Amino acid sequence: MMKIIMMMAMTADGKIAKNDNHFPNWTSKEDKAMFAKITKEHRAVLMGDKTFWTFPVPLPERLNVVFTLENNPPKIEGVKWVSGEPEKVLEELEEMGYNSAVLGGGCYLNTLFLRKKLIDEIILTIEPKIFGGGLSLFNENVNIDLELLEAKKINNQSIMLRYKVLY
Amino acid sequence: MMKIIMMMAMTADGKIAKNDNHFPNWTSKEDKAMFAKITKEHRAVLMGDKTFWTFPVPLPERLNVVFTLENNPPKIEGVKWVSGEPEKVLEELEEMGYNSAVLGGGCYLNTLFLRKKLIDEIILTIEPKIFGGGLSLFNENVNIDLELLEAKKINNQSIMLRYKVLY
Repeated sequence: MMKIIMMMAMTADGKIAKNDNHFPNWTSKEDKAMFAKITKEHRAVLMGDKTFWTFPVPLPERLNVVFTLENNPPKIEGVKWVSGEPEKVLEELEEMGYNSAVLGGGCYLNTLFLRKKLIDEIILTIEPKIFGGGLSLFNENVNIDLELLEAKKINNQSIMLRYKVLY
Repeated sequence: MMKIIMMMAMTADGKIAKNDNHFPNWTSKEDKAMFAKITKEHRAVLMGDKTFWTFPVPLPERLNVVFTLENNPPKIEGVKWVSGEPEKVLEELEEMGYNSAVLGGGCYLNTLFLRKKLIDEIILTIEPKIFGGGLSLFNENVNIDLELLEAKKINNQSIMLRYKVLY
């Protein structure tokens, strides 16, 4: 089974974006560098199309695996459009030689993967901001316990927490 | 001016409760001990009546300052029912000899105090859980920067973050 690591930056009040179109450029450069480093190690990033379209360009040097409900998404280099059951998508990626991937949101896809118990680890960066409203990490009630594996400052203002998901 | 410290425990996904009636008994004993210690130092805890009614009894050895819209709230020892502008309530507490108080939720009162720039510090405990849905720290859009003053483990699973609010 593919190892899936969900990786998200959030505000101190647990928000990942102000709204669906909010490009995640409010995070620290250390968080961006950590995201780039870890996603390049795993070589594939899973995301929803709303999240993908907030990026100016596809994430370079990684396979952008983008879940969409569109029938004819545009052909873009570095992008693999997928749909349907996440388990099937992960099987296909495994056949392509991937052993692991990073799940990078948004909250709909995060929730789908969590409900199906496909997320092994969660890496959160907590940035020193409050959005009040906006999008949370997930968008449905669940009741999941985590195990804290690591907690560290990535700069003097931002905290990284790494958890194992206990289903 | 009274110093106001907002103090909340939240899940890793930024939820303070599953719903309005959810008694906060899911937090670690170290968080409960820290809340008791700090609120006893400040001697007064501000909260909304929904939050107050999730408690089995009023917080002992502290003044429970409970915001309510009810006209005839029941007389309860240790409870000061208040209503109206938070600034007036804080003035009254100051006249009573309080220099500081802890704001303990819920999200409606937290948001009111934040919008009025009355919160000086925010102390968060992050517990190793996910609720998915539920109540966030605040319930309206804001855009506030924080300054991280302190980050520490209070046990091997729970992280305390202390922030100054930069208005």
